[in-house]
Amino acid sequence: MYSFMNDYSEGAHARVLELLKQSNLEQNTGYGLDVHSLKAKEYIKNKIGREDVDIHFIPGGTQTNLLVISSFLRPHQCVISVDSGHINVHETGAVEATGHKVVTVPGEDGKLTPEGIAKVLEEHTDEHMVQPKMVYISNTTELGTIYTKAELTAISNFCKEKKLLLFLDGARLASALTCKANDLTLNDIASLVDVFYIGGTKNGALLGEALVLCNESMKEDFRYLIKHRGAMLAKGFVMGIQFEALFEDNLYFELGKHANQMAEKIAEALHQGGYSFYATPGTNQLFPILSNKTIDQLAEKFIFSIQAKVDSDHSAVRFVTSWATREESVEALIKELILLSSK
Amino acid sequence: MYSFMNDYSEGAHARVLELLKQSNLEQNTGYGLDVHSLKAKEYIKNKIGREDVDIHFIPGGTQTNLLVISSFLRPHQCVISVDSGHINVHETGAVEATGHKVVTVPGEDGKLTPEGIAKVLEEHTDEHMVQPKMVYISNTTELGTIYTKAELTAISNFCKEKKLLLFLDGARLASALTCKANDLTLNDIASLVDVFYIGGTKNGALLGEALVLCNESMKEDFRYLIKHRGAMLAKGFVMGIQFEALFEDNLYFELGKHANQMAEKIAEALHQGGYSFYATPGTNQLFPILSNKTIDQLAEKFIFSIQAKVDSDHSAVRFVTSWATREESVEALIKELILLSSK
Amino acid sequence: MYSFMNDYSEGAHARVLELLKQSNLEQNTGYGLDVHSLKAKEYIKNKIGREDVDIHFIPGGTQTNLLVISSFLRPHQCVISVDSGHINVHETGAVEATGHKVVTVPGEDGKLTPEGIAKVLEEHTDEHMVQPKMVYISNTTELGTIYTKAELTAISNFCKEKKLLLFLDGARLASALTCKANDLTLNDIASLVDVFYIGGTKNGALLGEALVLCNESMKEDFRYLIKHRGAMLAKGFVMGIQFEALFEDNLYFELGKHANQMAEKIAEALHQGGYSFYATPGTNQLFPILSNKTIDQLAEKFIFSIQAKVDSDHSAVRFVTSWATREESVEALIKELILLSSK
Amino acid sequence: MYSFMNDYSEGAHARVLELLKQSNLEQNTGYGLDVHSLKAKEYIKNKIGREDVDIHFIPGGTQTNLLVISSFLRPHQCVISVDSGHINVHETGAVEATGHKVVTVPGEDGKLTPEGIAKVLEEHTDEHMVQPKMVYISNTTELGTIYTKAELTAISNFCKEKKLLLFLDGARLASALTCKANDLTLNDIASLVDVFYIGGTKNGALLGEALVLCNESMKEDFRYLIKHRGAMLAKGFVMGIQFEALFEDNLYFELGKHANQMAEKIAEALHQGGYSFYATPGTNQLFPILSNKTIDQLAEKFIFSIQAKVDSDHSAVRFVTSWATREESVEALIKELILLSSK
Repeated sequence: MYSFMNDYSEGAHARVLELLKQSNLEQNTGYGLDVHSLKAKEYIKNKIGREDVDIHFIPGGTQTNLLVISSFLRPHQCVISVDSGHINVHETGAVEATGHKVVTVPGEDGKLTPEGIAKVLEEHTDEHMVQPKMVYISNTTELGTIYTKAELTAISNFCKEKKLLLFLDGARLASALTCKANDLTLNDIASLVDVFYIGGTKNGALLGEALVLCNESMKEDFRYLIKHRGAMLAKGFVMGIQFEALFEDNLYFELGKHANQMAEKIAEALHQGGYSFYATPGTNQLFPILSNKTIDQLAEKFIFSIQAKVDSDHSAVRFVTSWATREESVEALIKELILLSSK
Repeated sequence: MYSFMNDYSEGAHARVLELLKQSNLEQNTGYGLDVHSLKAKEYIKNKIGREDVDIHFIPGGTQTNLLVISSFLRPHQCVISVDSGHINVHETGAVEATGHKVVTVPGEDGKLTPEGIAKVLEEHTDEHMVQPKMVYISNTTELGTIYTKAELTAISNFCKEKKLLLFLDGARLASALTCKANDLTLNDIASLVDVFYIGGTKNGALLGEALVLCNESMKEDFRYLIKHRGAMLAKGFVMGIQFEALFEDNLYFELGKHANQMAEKIAEALHQGGYSFYATPGTNQLFPILSNKTIDQLAEKFIFSIQAKVDSDHSAVRFVTSWATREESVEALIKELILLSSK
Repeated sequence: MYSFMNDYSEGAHARVLELLKQSNLEQNTGYGLDVHSLKAKEYIKNKIGREDVDIHFIPGGTQTNLLVISSFLRPHQCVISVDSGHINVHETGAVEATGHKVVTVPGEDGKLTPEGIAKVLEEHTDEHMVQPKMVYISNTTELGTIYTKAELTAISNFCKEKKLLLFLDGARLASALTCKANDLTLNDIASLVDVFYIGGTKNGALLGEALVLCNESMKEDFRYLIKHRGAMLAKGFVMGIQFEALFEDNLYFELGKHANQMAEKIAEALHQGGYSFYATPGTNQLFPILSNKTIDQLAEKFIFSIQAKVDSDHSAVRFVTSWATREESVEALIKELILLSSK
Repeated sequence: MYSFMNDYSEGAHARVLELLKQSNLEQNTGYGLDVHSLKAKEYIKNKIGREDVDIHFIPGGTQTNLLVISSFLRPHQCVISVDSGHINVHETGAVEATGHKVVTVPGEDGKLTPEGIAKVLEEHTDEHMVQPKMVYISNTTELGTIYTKAELTAISNFCKEKKLLLFLDGARLASALTCKANDLTLNDIASLVDVFYIGGTKNGALLGEALVLCNESMKEDFRYLIKHRGAMLAKGFVMGIQFEALFEDNLYFELGKHANQMAEKIAEALHQGGYSFYATPGTNQLFPILSNKTIDQLAEKFIFSIQAKVDSDHSAVRFVTSWATREESVEALIKELILLSSK
């Protein structure tokens, strides 16, 4: 049975594995200070078009989130997120474990807005309440939607005005930056946010997220902070080599594009089948609303998850494609969707 | 220049890489619930000779240490370690970051004793002081020494009597269990401690430590605790596959033995050269005392670290071998050591 | 200008001060182990009608809340509260500082219900989310409403069924237990919850909350936990003496009743004046909805706070009475309210 | 039986109680923003001779310590203390509970030296170890010794050079500043340290420590931090009034002087009796070395504590005097000491 459950079911892209194998018996410096990590960082800086950012490779997304949030907030400060934000719902309190409250606002199509942030600021007025100091967004969002350049710029300007740090979780940045509706570049993001990461785990690597510190004030002592949270791998070069493979040319973006194209095909079929969507489709996560009967029938042939109950007869499901999704699997799903819609 | 700097310079053993490649395009369940992880756990349980332990794969050692210590202590409780313990010196306060004090006693050849633990208990008598509740040891120790069965049994009995949890850090357990002086089995360890781990990072894997929960009371909700600390990889199968390769036969132990044999050769040469040792040799870490002049000359051809200043003319250095250490490199080092000692 | 701003504007009841003075030069044992604290605990146990509870005096409410929540949850567990709960809004992230998430549900008239708790349980299903383990309620609530015996019993039964700990914040318990609509006794509360506290700060003491541990499993090592959070006063007897004065007879309850009677008079006048309420009145906090013009005029003569904007012309204000509220001040306020309503 | 157990056995000085009584029915603003707190802060600033410091009243010493240390360190940073420091030994891990390691050096007569600090800096060289950033000292020390102006200046200069924050715990500052050997003023301390506190609990108040932030960078948001740690009393004026009474004239210093004079008499008698001392006497804590037999006999008539075993026949005991120690009690103790020494 083919799985559209998530984008972390398979291992790594063949070229990533190949480079791991090639360099396997080299003796590398430990803790991410090796030549592969350095080279990978240079490649990424080139793609960003900036030399003045600091890059660190961190094993996982939750770990990156808790590390960033706890490193740049003072104890009494909180982070603002949409209520569907990964840090709020799906990290088992990992951010709170570092002592910081996550204050939430309802998302609009999964996205945060300056108005949403403003509402939190209005409500947090004195020392009896946590002090908002960081804004957390993700691109793509948990609902597969993306921030346009105008939207991200509006948030960025608002944050600068209010002296809030802006943190962009890019676990699925490859899909965001290569989708049709996108008008953001890595360079834009680096100018608009204080810190962001470029997800490897969900786009061709065995593991690893490339954290990019854009704000000068964030750079000091960051390796201490990584180690302090248990996020520094002895064999940091394992991540360095993988990002080297992903960024020495355009592999990273090609993989994102492939995931999006696979999703697009499914989305088209869904549109044609007259299905509606729980959130605007456009990237590698689709949330069509299906009848429970359709869901049951699909579940006999494909693996996917239920996102939310919509009414007594319908639910939103989640189909996720990835760099590894095969065309034939997509076609099989489409065939089934068409079949079921015509019944 | 060949490096004897540490045992995490190279990637993974060829068979580990091979299995990663073979299974690369399988679609695995996320978060460590995949078939490879299950199989690896079964293999490890077989080696331990016990079915009633819970096994979890954790990316790194510091992360495993902070996870274990914070999961089983109440807020006011502390962990006891020798002063040279990894959690005390080399983890940038990662344990304290979870709210717990590390109380230390001087080590004897790097090792903790019941007497050392007893001294802490005598000093911690009431609610104005932290309450000792866990004992942390590592095998091999930071000085490459090992616990004999008699020593570990004495500590274990003392801990049971005093209701202390016993945690064994096995980042270098492969070397400990396959060295000449060892009389402990995995089964012994599982009966004597409450929790321990079998290090992969330093013995043939790209990353990963196999944490073994032996004490029944520790098992509940442990996956929550892993996620809570950011230690749950989306692609948990990446670790599962590696431990599968290491434990489906005796590869894990063969790699440990190889590391020890390489170290033994160096140790013999050092003995013959009349060098003395900072700590008893016997595993894959050697701490010979060399003259500063010898150190300078060696450093022109080999990479290694200085452990401690011994007197104005001598220092203890650290040579580390691993599963990947080549015989020719060892011979080159020996040749140089003999040459220098004869001068 | 008379203040109805809160119930902690004045010092202590005369009899409390008198006992502090009388015993001032006695030499007491430190850290709450003195005879006054012991006596006060006996008096409180008598009022509760149970000998098998443990009582500890803690300086303040936020401190008590963070102490209780952090003492009885494991790291991955969260506490459930209504969104208006004090721990969620007005404690500057003090609970999160101890590592625990506060998960919220909308309150009904400021109160939590089994249905609200059930909704949280339904949404928190696996290890990717925090694990609900404690329920936090306050009586009176932040909106001055109270739990009836039936309501508290329903919550208690639900918590027992779901193995959730039930914690009742009684910062204003005196007002709750002595208001007209109340049908709960201290003994009822002690049987229905696992832990609660009897607020002194807001009912006649200079400072201090009497924390009552009813659940046997909570008692062990609690003095360690108090000290660990910096909540153990060297001169613990200062709180012991005050609770001795408050509980050696019925003073504590008389003070609560006085506060309620003062509020009742104001509530009656508000009813007569045709004012509506933001939350059901009945205890020492009243939340009438006034026109902005009325508010401005009142503010010239009295001090009080604005609770919430209701529409463009009206807001809910908060009037708080206390053990120290003078009849003449209440009459002055009533007179003004009548005057303004007749305009 | 008279107790020389500690300096927090009695309540408050009569004038402190009197002012509490006088102002008891005033309606004060909550949370330390009242007129009494403001007045007290002005009085203290006058004594310090500086307007540009921020003062906050905190209920207890452990709470003040954990608040200060956690407010000004980043997560990976540690505080340096002598091994006998209160934060290291007697606070049940309260500092570690906020995530920070306490790194210790042996004290010299209970005191820290620049050499001791330098040793820690030398050992903490990279991101695998915590980063030293704050130095914690107390005056008087745990052994009743004091820092001279020269000693404090040396530490201060060293800290400035190494960019370390200097924090002075003044729980017993009254005794330090009024003892014979003292050559420091409050103004000196404010110029030499970044933050310190003036202890009320042990010198005439029911509770309360006056925390003085001298370093401009520490002032921002400090009220948030107080609330965040549960250290903000609703009735902050209770502490304000007490410090008003202690500092409106010289009462605070007179009380310190009285405690010292009482101790001096005892120390003289001990000298005359030929007793030796475990630490240099001079303030309100004395640590004479007595034979175990003498200790047993004394314990029949006086209450005091054993500090440390010296040899099989002798132990160091601790006698503490305070603002409340009566001359007659001192004379009774002296009489007994002379009697026992002459046997």
